[in-house]
Amino acid sequence: MTKSTSSSPDSFSDVVLAIHGGAQVLRRDVMSGEVEQRYLFHLAAALETGFKVLQKGGSAVDGVESAVRYLEDCPVFNSGKGAVLNINGHVELDAAIMDGRTKAAGSVACIRTVKNPISAARAVMEKSEHVLLAGPGADEFAQECGLEIVDAEYFHTDHQQQKLQEFQKAQQQAPQAFAAQSLPVLSKYGTVGAVALDKDHNLAAATSTGGIINKLRGRIGDSPLIGAGTYADNETCAVSATGHGEFFIRWVAAYDISAMMKYAGLDVVVAADKVINEKLKQVNGSGGVIALDAHGTCALPFNSEGMFRGCVTSNGDIRVFIFRN
Amino acid sequence: MTKSTSSSPDSFSDVVLAIHGGAQVLRRDVMSGEVEQRYLFHLAAALETGFKVLQKGGSAVDGVESAVRYLEDCPVFNSGKGAVLNINGHVELDAAIMDGRTKAAGSVACIRTVKNPISAARAVMEKSEHVLLAGPGADEFAQECGLEIVDAEYFHTDHQQQKLQEFQKAQQQAPQAFAAQSLPVLSKYGTVGAVALDKDHNLAAATSTGGIINKLRGRIGDSPLIGAGTYADNETCAVSATGHGEFFIRWVAAYDISAMMKYAGLDVVVAADKVINEKLKQVNGSGGVIALDAHGTCALPFNSEGMFRGCVTSNGDIRVFIFRN
Repeated sequence: MTKSTSSSPDSFSDVVLAIHGGAQVLRRDVMSGEVEQRYLFHLAAALETGFKVLQKGGSAVDGVESAVRYLEDCPVFNSGKGAVLNINGHVELDAAIMDGRTKAAGSVACIRTVKNPISAARAVMEKSEHVLLAGPGADEFAQECGLEIVDAEYFHTDHQQQKLQEFQKAQQQAPQAFAAQSLPVLSKYGTVGAVALDKDHNLAAATSTGGIINKLRGRIGDSPLIGAGTYADNETCAVSATGHGEFFIRWVAAYDISAMMKYAGLDVVVAADKVINEKLKQVNGSGGVIALDAHGTCALPFNSEGMFRGCVTSNGDIRVFIFRN
Repeated sequence: MTKSTSSSPDSFSDVVLAIHGGAQVLRRDVMSGEVEQRYLFHLAAALETGFKVLQKGGSAVDGVESAVRYLEDCPVFNSGKGAVLNINGHVELDAAIMDGRTKAAGSVACIRTVKNPISAARAVMEKSEHVLLAGPGADEFAQECGLEIVDAEYFHTDHQQQKLQEFQKAQQQAPQAFAAQSLPVLSKYGTVGAVALDKDHNLAAATSTGGIINKLRGRIGDSPLIGAGTYADNETCAVSATGHGEFFIRWVAAYDISAMMKYAGLDVVVAADKVINEKLKQVNGSGGVIALDAHGTCALPFNSEGMFRGCVTSNGDIRVFIFRN
């Protein structure tokens, strides 16, 4: 197994698992080499975790769940531990998972006590009549399913506490200037996600996030919404998105890639590029996607300055990137 | 203005406003003439309400909001007053609105105190940075926006209380037989919605619902999810769906109609029919949609036994239906 950070076009072939760790407002000139290496290390470790599951015969659903669980547990990404705080200083977590074989799907939104939101989403998919559960009802359901429950404090980090204070202070000091700027420019809005292709040629997608910093209580973004931030269909592709969620919802971004493949005959690379670098870019809908088709072709386009991302091929070759190369 | 209940194909032309009041498990042989007339009366009144707004120069967004507000206030439909109860005997309401001119959208989910959820959705669209707010955060936001707040008891009706008791009793008495049957066959799952075309040729869509009877706390269906139960884009169509929401979410039903029009060149009647009578019917995804394009062509297909529905043309001709004709 090799690890490479060399020159990256936006697409790869023979991919079995791809992940992203958000398309935040990243600037290469202000990111230290040490920080960059830490992110790359964790991206590679998440890919390795998911790859091992797939290699042992795990399903695509198993693969995306395990990769996303790694990223949720890792405090440097905006999901699970280390998630951003809302306007009241609380963590509210969203996640979704979809099985491309059956179009089965499960999502949770605004949960506060489940250590791994992606596993709660899987429980909704497999153990309920529903697709999406939100708020305390979702926390209760996950607990009844035997998932690991933690105190709300588990998710909190000093780093995010400080970020929220800085954000709210900036907003208070210059409300006019602040309001004039679009939210994502000022905020950290990361997300983690994975798409996988298993030995039975099934696709799956998973996404998990803390949303946007300083968000209103109860705000749900695109991540847990099937078709917006997460989608999988064996006939077309598996997609996980990251970025300014409100745009991804209104443009039905994840499903739009699938629809262009199915109805307009585009391949996954062209369809994903159209959504990110034409449609969303045109309206300042900042972000990116990872999109994988059933032949192992994977597109990782983004219209922001950087996107934490990477993929692993069937022979175990891991590639991880942050900025454009 | 005439009112007609005569022979209905699934499509109409020169339509400026169409509505639905749900595609419940309806059986003509058990519905009394009196009940049928009551439903038809309210459908016609909702159309007249919305039509007047459009006639006075109101926008498509104004038109769908006013028609849906009428239906929310009417206790015979599953939205606002008269909504179904969840597993704990509570009302949790979902709604969405979308403006086809700008693709602006707003939604609320699991709200309990706002008299007209569709107006809360509109407030999210117009007065927040977000698209979807859920739970107490959404109720709080609506209150801050000055919307009418009511006690949870306002929504409760004896009829729905009795329905829930009957449902839970049936489930308790024969859990095996109950589990073997699919949920929608046994339950009432209505929704109300509207699509409109205004004098400036702008489209809009709105949907509001209490969801599925006996649903888990925190369950969100397709109605408030952009692309699933509600969608509008001037370039293609405005859509509001009703039915077994989980299928409409997984099939991204509302946006799929738009995508087939845009990418496969289908017209609104054929595209809506494909989603309802091919894709969803094949997987027992019971329900229907109302879909209106920018030329005033309106499709009202459903794969259930009936769907409360109707439309009004630019000259004020109102047509309302429940069953197939």
